[in-house]
Amino acid sequence: MVRTMLLLNNGEILYERPVEEIINQQAKWFWVDFSEPTAQEIQYLSDIFAFHHLAIEDCLHLLQRPKIDDFGDYRFFVLHAVSNQKGKPEEINLFVAKNYIVSFRMNPNQDLDKVWNQVKQNPELTQKGPDYLLYLIIDRLVDQYFPVLLRIDDELERLESENFLRPSQRMINRVFKIRKDLLSLRRSLEPYREVVREILHPEDEKWKIKYRIFFGDIYDHLAKLLEMTDTYRQIGSDLIESYVSLNSQRMNRVMVTLTVITTIFMPLTFLAGIYGMNFDNMPELHWKYGYFFVLTLMSVIAGGMVIWFRRRGWF
Amino acid sequence: MVRTMLLLNNGEILYERPVEEIINQQAKWFWVDFSEPTAQEIQYLSDIFAFHHLAIEDCLHLLQRPKIDDFGDYRFFVLHAVSNQKGKPEEINLFVAKNYIVSFRMNPNQDLDKVWNQVKQNPELTQKGPDYLLYLIIDRLVDQYFPVLLRIDDELERLESENFLRPSQRMINRVFKIRKDLLSLRRSLEPYREVVREILHPEDEKWKIKYRIFFGDIYDHLAKLLEMTDTYRQIGSDLIESYVSLNSQRMNRVMVTLTVITTIFMPLTFLAGIYGMNFDNMPELHWKYGYFFVLTLMSVIAGGMVIWFRRRGWF
Amino acid sequence: MVRTMLLLNNGEILYERPVEEIINQQAKWFWVDFSEPTAQEIQYLSDIFAFHHLAIEDCLHLLQRPKIDDFGDYRFFVLHAVSNQKGKPEEINLFVAKNYIVSFRMNPNQDLDKVWNQVKQNPELTQKGPDYLLYLIIDRLVDQYFPVLLRIDDELERLESENFLRPSQRMINRVFKIRKDLLSLRRSLEPYREVVREILHPEDEKWKIKYRIFFGDIYDHLAKLLEMTDTYRQIGSDLIESYVSLNSQRMNRVMVTLTVITTIFMPLTFLAGIYGMNFDNMPELHWKYGYFFVLTLMSVIAGGMVIWFRRRGWF
Amino acid sequence: MVRTMLLLNNGEILYERPVEEIINQQAKWFWVDFSEPTAQEIQYLSDIFAFHHLAIEDCLHLLQRPKIDDFGDYRFFVLHAVSNQKGKPEEINLFVAKNYIVSFRMNPNQDLDKVWNQVKQNPELTQKGPDYLLYLIIDRLVDQYFPVLLRIDDELERLESENFLRPSQRMINRVFKIRKDLLSLRRSLEPYREVVREILHPEDEKWKIKYRIFFGDIYDHLAKLLEMTDTYRQIGSDLIESYVSLNSQRMNRVMVTLTVITTIFMPLTFLAGIYGMNFDNMPELHWKYGYFFVLTLMSVIAGGMVIWFRRRGWF
Amino acid sequence: MVRTMLLLNNGEILYERPVEEIINQQAKWFWVDFSEPTAQEIQYLSDIFAFHHLAIEDCLHLLQRPKIDDFGDYRFFVLHAVSNQKGKPEEINLFVAKNYIVSFRMNPNQDLDKVWNQVKQNPELTQKGPDYLLYLIIDRLVDQYFPVLLRIDDELERLESENFLRPSQRMINRVFKIRKDLLSLRRSLEPYREVVREILHPEDEKWKIKYRIFFGDIYDHLAKLLEMTDTYRQIGSDLIESYVSLNSQRMNRVMVTLTVITTIFMPLTFLAGIYGMNFDNMPELHWKYGYFFVLTLMSVIAGGMVIWFRRRGWF
Repeated sequence: MVRTMLLLNNGEILYERPVEEIINQQAKWFWVDFSEPTAQEIQYLSDIFAFHHLAIEDCLHLLQRPKIDDFGDYRFFVLHAVSNQKGKPEEINLFVAKNYIVSFRMNPNQDLDKVWNQVKQNPELTQKGPDYLLYLIIDRLVDQYFPVLLRIDDELERLESENFLRPSQRMINRVFKIRKDLLSLRRSLEPYREVVREILHPEDEKWKIKYRIFFGDIYDHLAKLLEMTDTYRQIGSDLIESYVSLNSQRMNRVMVTLTVITTIFMPLTFLAGIYGMNFDNMPELHWKYGYFFVLTLMSVIAGGMVIWFRRRGWF
Repeated sequence: MVRTMLLLNNGEILYERPVEEIINQQAKWFWVDFSEPTAQEIQYLSDIFAFHHLAIEDCLHLLQRPKIDDFGDYRFFVLHAVSNQKGKPEEINLFVAKNYIVSFRMNPNQDLDKVWNQVKQNPELTQKGPDYLLYLIIDRLVDQYFPVLLRIDDELERLESENFLRPSQRMINRVFKIRKDLLSLRRSLEPYREVVREILHPEDEKWKIKYRIFFGDIYDHLAKLLEMTDTYRQIGSDLIESYVSLNSQRMNRVMVTLTVITTIFMPLTFLAGIYGMNFDNMPELHWKYGYFFVLTLMSVIAGGMVIWFRRRGWF
Repeated sequence: MVRTMLLLNNGEILYERPVEEIINQQAKWFWVDFSEPTAQEIQYLSDIFAFHHLAIEDCLHLLQRPKIDDFGDYRFFVLHAVSNQKGKPEEINLFVAKNYIVSFRMNPNQDLDKVWNQVKQNPELTQKGPDYLLYLIIDRLVDQYFPVLLRIDDELERLESENFLRPSQRMINRVFKIRKDLLSLRRSLEPYREVVREILHPEDEKWKIKYRIFFGDIYDHLAKLLEMTDTYRQIGSDLIESYVSLNSQRMNRVMVTLTVITTIFMPLTFLAGIYGMNFDNMPELHWKYGYFFVLTLMSVIAGGMVIWFRRRGWF
Repeated sequence: MVRTMLLLNNGEILYERPVEEIINQQAKWFWVDFSEPTAQEIQYLSDIFAFHHLAIEDCLHLLQRPKIDDFGDYRFFVLHAVSNQKGKPEEINLFVAKNYIVSFRMNPNQDLDKVWNQVKQNPELTQKGPDYLLYLIIDRLVDQYFPVLLRIDDELERLESENFLRPSQRMINRVFKIRKDLLSLRRSLEPYREVVREILHPEDEKWKIKYRIFFGDIYDHLAKLLEMTDTYRQIGSDLIESYVSLNSQRMNRVMVTLTVITTIFMPLTFLAGIYGMNFDNMPELHWKYGYFFVLTLMSVIAGGMVIWFRRRGWF
Repeated sequence: MVRTMLLLNNGEILYERPVEEIINQQAKWFWVDFSEPTAQEIQYLSDIFAFHHLAIEDCLHLLQRPKIDDFGDYRFFVLHAVSNQKGKPEEINLFVAKNYIVSFRMNPNQDLDKVWNQVKQNPELTQKGPDYLLYLIIDRLVDQYFPVLLRIDDELERLESENFLRPSQRMINRVFKIRKDLLSLRRSLEPYREVVREILHPEDEKWKIKYRIFFGDIYDHLAKLLEMTDTYRQIGSDLIESYVSLNSQRMNRVMVTLTVITTIFMPLTFLAGIYGMNFDNMPELHWKYGYFFVLTLMSVIAGGMVIWFRRRGWF
């Protein structure tokens, strides 16, 4: 699907004109939005807009990191959207020139739809030009990272309190999973920040923007988001380490129990075994108080062991 | 609550004038302090001072890191206060221009109250202008981090000596908790330092300050504080590592005990079991010295085991 | 084998002329390609081209990292190719001047063969000059890293799911092996990126290139590749850590089983041992319900133990 | 105690003149040395020298890191001395101007005393001015770190050889203690290096020094010292890691012993238990060779177990 | 021993002239080589050459890292040689001026002897001046690091394959030893690289050199060497980690064996103990098939246990 929006020099706004018409019209600026384009619509990029073939390839191959490429007349953006909840960021591509923005994505994306509607409902926004539209788009895309990270924060908080109550391997596997997600978010956010830095301090004077304070605000958000991923990864590490130390502590307690029990009963059982032997000549067996003496001896041994373990602080 | 302080050109100081009046008055400089403002008072920020809506949003949303934003006529500060002991830093916002400071916080904060009283009691301080007031505020806020970190230092010291006497998982959980607090302090202190660096070396010449040595002193304090957080995190790590190695050492000792006891008594019990069997034809049973021979044999086996373990250095 | 390609000033393209002839001919530019050269052909480098002896040594010794050396009239490149699947990168050497490229490799390499054929089949490519040829070669070489890394990604994915189902040391050894491969890929990719950075921003003005966007594209790919190696190494680390924590968890479970069994049966066996003793005077033995009483006592002890373990959450 | 040294313009050297007199005298330069000053002597800093109150505060509060502060007419140094063997570095403060040095420390320090005597005994040193005196002081202070670190090196060497012979937790606790000391030395040395770097490359042209080669020599020493602390920390880490792996190895050996013993004797004891049962109808008991058959069976089982363990390489 | 070499302005080369004579002669340049000098020969450094006393001290004290000091008329180099196989690098000192090189070492060193002979046998090399001689010396010294590191590579390779076949603590101790050696090599190589960087990009224009490509080649070698040390340290770490995970895996297997054996035989032995009791009234004992019933029961219990363990995947 291709949607168009066109601001004429006289301030009039036209919607949904065919792409071929737009490009030849005298206009202040226009926005063409490709969403799930057909093969034929994809052809527009090269046939009508004559974009560089490397940029078009980047639109079609979905393994890109956020970046900004300067092709002289226009700049090409690869951006990520995480609103879709698939865990994996989705790609949004923008071609931004002085007098137009072409947005392109292979899959449907509601963030761009929302910006489209927002601009449509507030026509005065179109007066601010493509720079401001670029701000609206990036701002919305970046803001979608916050709920994703806050969900992770909540889960870590929950796992942490669970760890103290009832540590389990299942929980730790979950932490490893979260660490992997954070790694992938980091790989998306870090180049994102570079993109916004490049917008704020463009290499080429020509791309200087009017709305620096707005983009500075996005930059702050990205710094905050990156800091959050790092902190959460650190918290995850601490959780794992704490789990391992807890496990070793628990093992210690188990081993101590085993050792105490074994050490007390082994000598007693041995003693009982001695007097269970069937030798003809075992004088103690015929002593009247033999049995009671042995029972007493056993109690003394057991009691001594207990005292000895207490002294060594084993339980 | 909104408090005001106003230094007239003739050196006279006025207190508690309404905000609307202040802004239109010819004055050297003034200080407006918002503490737990009502919804109506919050409106002053946009209605009377006409601050940028992004800055006002930052005042109201409490998830900011310390930062400094340049809005041309004034600079907007987000600062952190840790005096409240809630563990989480609280936000203080400042709007600083050449001829005024507007301080703003949603919750009550005694640090700003103390600075207010200090200035009120020493009216000569007002002569030094907003730059010096900014120094007074930041200096007090930063100084509050020291008791927080020294409390952590004390607790680590205590946990460390406890670790040598009686290591326990509870203690280690405490260390993990401290590491998490240090992480959050670090996230507050690091951008703080950037704020002070920006005050010392402003991007825009216009914001050059008179009191560089004073802010340099704050910068030293922040460097020291950051160093302290790093050192304490390192000490925490070492404590955990030491606990784990202690645990493994303790486990080793327990296992050796278990193994020694088992290895000595298993063969003896087996021997007793042999002569407890009820076969008709067991010649040893009828030998007169059979029983005493077996007892001797058992002593020899036990003694041999003990010597063998001694040789291998097991106990 | 030595192949040659020559673009005359009149646009005519000549193939397979002898090297001696080429170098003296008036031509726009030429490409000489050494593949598995004989000792005599290697002599051409010094005798005909008069390349610096340090560069020629680098061609013959195969322990180089990717690099770029400026010898004034020409630049010498060491590049790596990983298409051969031997695990170890292979060296490709290029001498690039304004009007020629000399490519050299000791072993056969199909990447260069493919570029050769590509140029031969699309003669219009020769019009773009040595810079574009350099782009074609490096682009192909760098692209070969992707399948290598994606294979590693697949294997890690597989090992990860295996780890949850049936962790084994064999699997972990495989992860260590992969980490070692990633280390060696990293050592190849990092200097590669430096080479491309040097092409994009040459120290000497003279080497400024026309096809910056194309090389910028390669640079993006290398950044992506480096990021992939880092992420995969991190995933490998997490896998190992997860395996260790799983192992300790499993050990814990085993130990608990052992301890529970031992703790339940040791006292019971001891009790049975007591009444297996052969003392003449053991009143309980002659009590009519002695046996049933002892059986009941044993059941009570066993039941009490089970309840106690349940309470402590051991099983 | 306050000592003074004064070089007049005519080359004459005066000692122990009162501080008030010195400051008003026409002189090439002078050195005032405060050691354990009385409260009254401390007043000199503000009353006579009129030093900045922030610097004086730094003199009296002993929680500083080495630093250099530029107050326009003079520079203020915080330095550390480790000669006192207390483990904790002690603070030395210097005020250095073009024509004087004021040294100050709350506690006695023999390093400064030695420099004082060295200058007194070699009056020609006074001709070289305050810069050279500054070199003498810092050089001596920095050199005192070497014996401290070499003692640590010796102890690590000793602990390392001990670790191979007879590893113990006591030894590992010692390593953790050393790591903590190294951390604190690092925190003292790193800002020290920054101080010397600032002396070598002063921000303000005015503070350019004559004796660059000498301070370069100190800088080398500090680089060497920092490198030593890092190496020793690394060696400490390796020692701990090696201890843990040794412990786990030892535990393994113990467990194998336990398992072998248990696995051999448990079935044998069980077999003996079988034939110790008192059933009326147990035919084997009445077989003439029953006993001998069982003994043979037990030997076969034990032998088989031993062979099986050998095969699995357990001992 | 002191050797001399002197290139006269007329191109004539003189050998073994006394040092005093050389320094006063009109010559293009000369080389004086001190090897194991006597106390009297050491005096030449200060008496004849008048080198700075800090440099001479550095020659005599053997705890230096590679460095370069600029003394105005000459530069002083501290270099390391590792050809002697002692494990510890040996110091070589050079004083390099525009018209001479003075080399100095306290111990014999065959690297310098070889360069001496190389120059003597190829007199045309002397025409290239001290810069080229400096290249010859450093190139030879740096090249000696390669066999040292390749020996480590070989040993790691060997230890790695050993680790898979028969892991042992002895092997791991060897890895820790190698890691320590690599640490010390790194401490020698890193400042070495700084020395060569300083030669390539001297601070003082005066020291610009002719043979940049040659020194660039050395720089490449040093980068490669540093990379090798880092990689080997990383491989060592992985080996240790792999050993620890292997150990824990092995321990797990041992524990499982122990637990299985104990869990199967404990209940059986208990059962046998029951029927070994001597109560008068034990009805089962007199039942004709009691014994056979108990044997069957035991088989059922043992079989059930085995099946249960199989199900849980314990063996």
